[in-house]
Amino acid sequence: MAAVTALIMRHEANIVTLDQYSDDPEGGAFFQRVVFHRPGLSIALPQIDADVAETLDPYGVQWVLTDQSVPKRMAILASTSDHCLLELLWRHRRGELPVTIPMLISNHTNVAEDVRSFGLPFFHVPSQGPDKSAAEARILELLGGNVDLVVLARYMQIISEDVLDAVGVPVINIHHSFLPAFIGAAPYRKAAERGVKLIGATSHYVTKDLDEGPIIEQDVARVDHTMDAAALQARGAYVERAVLSRAVQWHAQDRVIRHGNHTIVFP
Amino acid sequence: MAAVTALIMRHEANIVTLDQYSDDPEGGAFFQRVVFHRPGLSIALPQIDADVAETLDPYGVQWVLTDQSVPKRMAILASTSDHCLLELLWRHRRGELPVTIPMLISNHTNVAEDVRSFGLPFFHVPSQGPDKSAAEARILELLGGNVDLVVLARYMQIISEDVLDAVGVPVINIHHSFLPAFIGAAPYRKAAERGVKLIGATSHYVTKDLDEGPIIEQDVARVDHTMDAAALQARGAYVERAVLSRAVQWHAQDRVIRHGNHTIVFP
Amino acid sequence: MAAVTALIMRHEANIVTLDQYSDDPEGGAFFQRVVFHRPGLSIALPQIDADVAETLDPYGVQWVLTDQSVPKRMAILASTSDHCLLELLWRHRRGELPVTIPMLISNHTNVAEDVRSFGLPFFHVPSQGPDKSAAEARILELLGGNVDLVVLARYMQIISEDVLDAVGVPVINIHHSFLPAFIGAAPYRKAAERGVKLIGATSHYVTKDLDEGPIIEQDVARVDHTMDAAALQARGAYVERAVLSRAVQWHAQDRVIRHGNHTIVFP
Amino acid sequence: MAAVTALIMRHEANIVTLDQYSDDPEGGAFFQRVVFHRPGLSIALPQIDADVAETLDPYGVQWVLTDQSVPKRMAILASTSDHCLLELLWRHRRGELPVTIPMLISNHTNVAEDVRSFGLPFFHVPSQGPDKSAAEARILELLGGNVDLVVLARYMQIISEDVLDAVGVPVINIHHSFLPAFIGAAPYRKAAERGVKLIGATSHYVTKDLDEGPIIEQDVARVDHTMDAAALQARGAYVERAVLSRAVQWHAQDRVIRHGNHTIVFP
Repeated sequence: MAAVTALIMRHEANIVTLDQYSDDPEGGAFFQRVVFHRPGLSIALPQIDADVAETLDPYGVQWVLTDQSVPKRMAILASTSDHCLLELLWRHRRGELPVTIPMLISNHTNVAEDVRSFGLPFFHVPSQGPDKSAAEARILELLGGNVDLVVLARYMQIISEDVLDAVGVPVINIHHSFLPAFIGAAPYRKAAERGVKLIGATSHYVTKDLDEGPIIEQDVARVDHTMDAAALQARGAYVERAVLSRAVQWHAQDRVIRHGNHTIVFP
Repeated sequence: MAAVTALIMRHEANIVTLDQYSDDPEGGAFFQRVVFHRPGLSIALPQIDADVAETLDPYGVQWVLTDQSVPKRMAILASTSDHCLLELLWRHRRGELPVTIPMLISNHTNVAEDVRSFGLPFFHVPSQGPDKSAAEARILELLGGNVDLVVLARYMQIISEDVLDAVGVPVINIHHSFLPAFIGAAPYRKAAERGVKLIGATSHYVTKDLDEGPIIEQDVARVDHTMDAAALQARGAYVERAVLSRAVQWHAQDRVIRHGNHTIVFP
Repeated sequence: MAAVTALIMRHEANIVTLDQYSDDPEGGAFFQRVVFHRPGLSIALPQIDADVAETLDPYGVQWVLTDQSVPKRMAILASTSDHCLLELLWRHRRGELPVTIPMLISNHTNVAEDVRSFGLPFFHVPSQGPDKSAAEARILELLGGNVDLVVLARYMQIISEDVLDAVGVPVINIHHSFLPAFIGAAPYRKAAERGVKLIGATSHYVTKDLDEGPIIEQDVARVDHTMDAAALQARGAYVERAVLSRAVQWHAQDRVIRHGNHTIVFP
Repeated sequence: MAAVTALIMRHEANIVTLDQYSDDPEGGAFFQRVVFHRPGLSIALPQIDADVAETLDPYGVQWVLTDQSVPKRMAILASTSDHCLLELLWRHRRGELPVTIPMLISNHTNVAEDVRSFGLPFFHVPSQGPDKSAAEARILELLGGNVDLVVLARYMQIISEDVLDAVGVPVINIHHSFLPAFIGAAPYRKAAERGVKLIGATSHYVTKDLDEGPIIEQDVARVDHTMDAAALQARGAYVERAVLSRAVQWHAQDRVIRHGNHTIVFP
């Protein structure tokens, strides 16, 4: 750690924040996030990159050096629900999500007008029938080389393991329940049947194990016996959009490190 | 409903609160809670009881008439953990739980001194070995006819269906997770393994289906990647004691109606 | 109360919910809200109205009978901030606010395009210089007879007492602090200076006493030492839009009763 | 910063956590907290202390080096309320507060038995009449040289500026409102009069400006129109004890830095 901070200061950069975490001080994994400010970074970056490699690679450290002035390119996949989607577009317009949004893809058309009113491209990729291969190929063609992040904003199609591999960038999903409770379809119906007093939402990275990927963020809302599944769903929409937005923001700010099936989320 | 309110007013009582709820206005079940104030209630109660029966029984309505000045008799069963137990005793001493506590039973002795410092009887019923029948018989003997409610304050023995039937009064449990997530044993270990961002606790009526009874109250606390299972457990203790205390308070105030596997909790 | 329920049932209506509250069982004020369902209500309403009057007026009871199928007409006044405004428009489009929105008025033009994309009329009423009388007259002309409710969605002009009287309908405001803390202007700057650990928002009815009207709803968000006034403001926007939306929804559903400087908000 | 980490590693210590914060990357104040593990620390400490001084003093840096295995000595001052007091004692007994508690002082006697049941010394210092000087002298005599921290657990006497100076260690208070709302006496009565929808509690360092010291922690609880001042107070007690306990824990763990009228609370 001293070597990294010394290296950064040697490059005349100011450390803005530095956070680290070890899951076991005696021989566990060690995680660190350093944010530094350096005028003229884009010119100095290749040299800093080389120096970090020289310093850390001998120890087998996994590291990433990113320029926060270069926003990530985020594609959004959605279906008919607009609440998560609009929240992301609106927060982006406010300047709170450090991303560009090169495209929105939906298997329906009802959100097209809203998306375009934000000046963003909308692509309709229908997904009917049991054979999804044509739709999947079309989506991969659109995404290929164009994105650094894919966000599933209540996208109601399953992403196959093949597609996930081919996409090659992180995929963030919002599950409309408090995982691991109510895994799978229709969580609000299941929650109503179980008579729960809180409902939740979970944003996680998508892995080949459906609903089992590393959790980035979760939250809940209080409900009561007067609410049926439809009322839970209406209330839950507000939790979903907040949880997904926070997860996307933290990922876009390079605050999240995946480690096995966990995440470290730096403050 | 008009008949009930008319009946109450005919008995010169003031209605303090009245709440009702129907799970379907067209032919669903209808639930109502009326609190009324009537000087000299203990003398008038038998006649009011008879009048309510005459009014409601022809319609097959299930009803209960209770005198809130008569506290329920609540037994507490505990093991080694003291946080739920002490919270109940302390809230009781503050006058926030309208119950009497005729006894505390534990399969360990470490909480005996604390319990007795509150002036309450403590009974040690050891529960070693695979055969629980002697311990169960002893517990039933202690409870028999003496209690209106049994609270499991982190009691780590399974209540068999036979015991549950024999007890004959409601039994409230605190499960140290956000049910239905992490059903069964060691929920904090499971939560740590899953990398959740919130942990919870659930208070429910005990039924023969373990961890599946009607939920009375739930709550959560925020956690993060720095916390291992032991840290989650330490944090969770504060959620558990709050959730169990609220559930017990609401039950003691006759606010909770069980309906199938759900509860209606009147405000 | 028995008289009211009897009257409602005499009109062949089903009571959907009934809630009541008394601020003192012995001689205090008594508040009640009854929701009933009656097919063909619009035809029966005049007779029900007359019967309620005959029943309640002799006792000097204040009462209102409204047809929930007739939405309230809600005007929104805004300035440059869009977060509260867009949240209201979006919730309205989702069918969660039982209102019509005949107009949005702003002293700026930047939100015009957004408002019109929802298919709603936008009126620009500039408000420069110390003399506000022309602007106020124009606003009153637009509102006159057209609205049942005025919502100030971060409208940064003071509503004079004369205008308030002339409007003649309830006016709901969102104050961007946790009243009564940080009354007046620039609450986020004051909060940052005071080093608070939570920021809040308060929705209240507007009265002639600025920031002193009856509170309908409040909420908070956690903040920390890393956040300056601008960061508090960005975070606070999410609390503001949620608090204002809930207050407007509850008012629109006739759940809120004003009593002195308090509100009773029925569940 | 690199110098400090290099120094720590030179002493064969492992850095466990390191957090830093700057209120302005360009020339603002810079705050850092480093926790390191070093077998045989007590022997090495004087040399580390000298080295840190040699490294940091030339720059005029304010710094403190503490051995976390040496708990702070915490005196508690209380009056008649037991909820904050018992919560601290109970958390201490669970091992969650890294302090010793050499004494509890109260101007009343009702909590004496509870305190002594935890095996702790109780001192009664009555405080009647307008002249507080005898009581203050007695308190200073008890505290003198014996404590590193004083906690006011709903102590209802004002600590004069003279006493504060003479105590010479940090003093933490719990104010039973969400400061800066409802400054001064009887905040629950004021909150009830104002019709708030949330009540709060604030823990802060005591300064000569009553209720104006640096805030360490705050929290709130939801309330409604049915609750009078007494009900708010009963509900508020649970917020108070949680907020004070967190503030004390963080202070005891050396997580809190005072800076002007603010605090930096490291995670």
